[in-house]
Amino acid sequence: MKTLQVSLAERSYPIFIGEKLLADAELLRAHVPARQVLLISNTTVAPLYAQLLKKAFAGCELVEAIIPDGEQHKNIATASRVWDVLVANRFSRDAMIVALGGGVVGDLAGFAAACYQRGIDFVQIPTTLLADVDSSVGGKTAVNHPGGKNLVGSFHQPRAVIIDVSLLVSLPEREYRAGLAEVIKYGLICDAEFFSWLEASMPRLLAREASALIEAIHRSCALKAGIVSRDERETGERALLNFGHTFGHAIEAVTGYTEWLHGEAVGTGMLIAASLSHRLGMLSDADLKRIGAVLAAAGLDRQPPQCGAARALEYMRVDKKVKSGRVRLILLEQIGRAIISADYADAALDATLLQYFG
Amino acid sequence: MKTLQVSLAERSYPIFIGEKLLADAELLRAHVPARQVLLISNTTVAPLYAQLLKKAFAGCELVEAIIPDGEQHKNIATASRVWDVLVANRFSRDAMIVALGGGVVGDLAGFAAACYQRGIDFVQIPTTLLADVDSSVGGKTAVNHPGGKNLVGSFHQPRAVIIDVSLLVSLPEREYRAGLAEVIKYGLICDAEFFSWLEASMPRLLAREASALIEAIHRSCALKAGIVSRDERETGERALLNFGHTFGHAIEAVTGYTEWLHGEAVGTGMLIAASLSHRLGMLSDADLKRIGAVLAAAGLDRQPPQCGAARALEYMRVDKKVKSGRVRLILLEQIGRAIISADYADAALDATLLQYFG
Repeated sequence: MKTLQVSLAERSYPIFIGEKLLADAELLRAHVPARQVLLISNTTVAPLYAQLLKKAFAGCELVEAIIPDGEQHKNIATASRVWDVLVANRFSRDAMIVALGGGVVGDLAGFAAACYQRGIDFVQIPTTLLADVDSSVGGKTAVNHPGGKNLVGSFHQPRAVIIDVSLLVSLPEREYRAGLAEVIKYGLICDAEFFSWLEASMPRLLAREASALIEAIHRSCALKAGIVSRDERETGERALLNFGHTFGHAIEAVTGYTEWLHGEAVGTGMLIAASLSHRLGMLSDADLKRIGAVLAAAGLDRQPPQCGAARALEYMRVDKKVKSGRVRLILLEQIGRAIISADYADAALDATLLQYFG
Repeated sequence: MKTLQVSLAERSYPIFIGEKLLADAELLRAHVPARQVLLISNTTVAPLYAQLLKKAFAGCELVEAIIPDGEQHKNIATASRVWDVLVANRFSRDAMIVALGGGVVGDLAGFAAACYQRGIDFVQIPTTLLADVDSSVGGKTAVNHPGGKNLVGSFHQPRAVIIDVSLLVSLPEREYRAGLAEVIKYGLICDAEFFSWLEASMPRLLAREASALIEAIHRSCALKAGIVSRDERETGERALLNFGHTFGHAIEAVTGYTEWLHGEAVGTGMLIAASLSHRLGMLSDADLKRIGAVLAAAGLDRQPPQCGAARALEYMRVDKKVKSGRVRLILLEQIGRAIISADYADAALDATLLQYFG
């Protein structure tokens, strides 16, 4: 088991990464020291793993809130139902929430925890690769709004994150590869050496070898934790974590959030962002090719919806990174070095959107 | 105009207290420096004052969200409607919310601001005396849940609070006097000198003289800000702010939350708490008489419902301040000095309840 500390002053918390952690009752109880525990999971994950967790919490008042699986249920109505459950069971301010699931469960459970009685503690037990390396670190919680993703949310740090790589064996192939997009992202934006490691280790990762997974997740979380601890409120550096996301959000929105997995959209979004960086004269030919090759190896080279450049741009404008009316973009200077910029040639953006969205 | 700085761990902000501040476009623009502004108000207040505000924000993209008047609309559905308006108008993370109204508008607008895009700035412009001295200080935002008041919310500090005492001329007499209860409370729990000033200034306050109002609100906010900054999470001293509230809650609950305004119930609740303090030998005869006289002068000497002592006690037990089954009470040692105690003679409490509730 590897351990990592996310340093955020009095809201610091540990991340544990290892095999069979869900069977480690001692670890679980040590980090969920509450009398009342609400387990939030979904209809896909709960049948597989909830029983294991219940054993660990045999001595507590454990209540379950099992939500339907799918991004479309990450909304205010579902959060309200969670609050209904907490109120109906008279959970007090020192109750805790355990989120067992992917990003949807984690984001929603975190938001529910953030707002119940103005904030109760919660622990993340992510069950997807995407959640392992992305949504479980950093304290961003949210639900979607019909007008856009994550538009209603809060910053609320978990008390601990417990990443059990053994859970990844049950993950469908598409979801697993989508998770790799975020892993690749960390190499691209801030760690060229890690990107090289990923190029070399892709076969082991695709085979879901535990040791490769622990290494990839540990490095991803460490990179994210470093960025988040330096810029919790996303006033600067943290925005780099959105690399590929502005284009990705457009893809997801255009297709109604149903056809593309988030990680798939981010994968293609990173390719578009890299392509634009190249068109702007920032990124080299060689780097662009390496990026394309790794994304293809991970099966993340899907073609975007042909909705037209204008419509894609419209959806990009709803993104949270718009400042004073202008879309700020995260671009690559080279593999391992990203910048945030509102100072780019519109013609290059238009040409890139035309190339990818038709 | 008087200015006060609230020093809190997360973020400090100024409170401005003066006359005709709503007409001071320069002040408003200085503290709402956004391009996109959402004005949240209610159907009672907006017709009176929204026009003035609109003038100040003539150069901005100003959108209004006017909610129905009343505590029953302080809920998740109304907050959702505010988020709908923000999304529909493509408000970005640097947009700001201006809350123009009483406690309901302020709490709801603050919660909407806390969660929209994980937190945007907001400014409070309270329009009731109660909101001026109570809900505008401390950063508690929330909506109600059918299972209880303020169960879903957030700590989110405003960027500034602008208290225009000129707005109080339109406040109905009962609401105005109910607000005075919270002002008197500050003198009673922690500032004997302020209580003396209130005794002397009651005629000017009842005439709503601007200079007296500015002084009373300034001192009340300063006292609350001091307490809140020393004990943000209500682990100790902040509980003193609930003086009169346990008896007050019983009055409100017995009468179904419809017949008594919150401040009216707190006023009578403070008299009952003072009377019990006297019966316990803590508070002097002279002090009890002074308290009764000030409350009577403010029209806050209404007789409690004659529901019987047993029923009143039952409702008191539901209050949040119950610890290990015993009702903790905030009592007065003298004017200006309150304590919290679970160590009182039950016979004295019973006799006091009998005296007031029959």
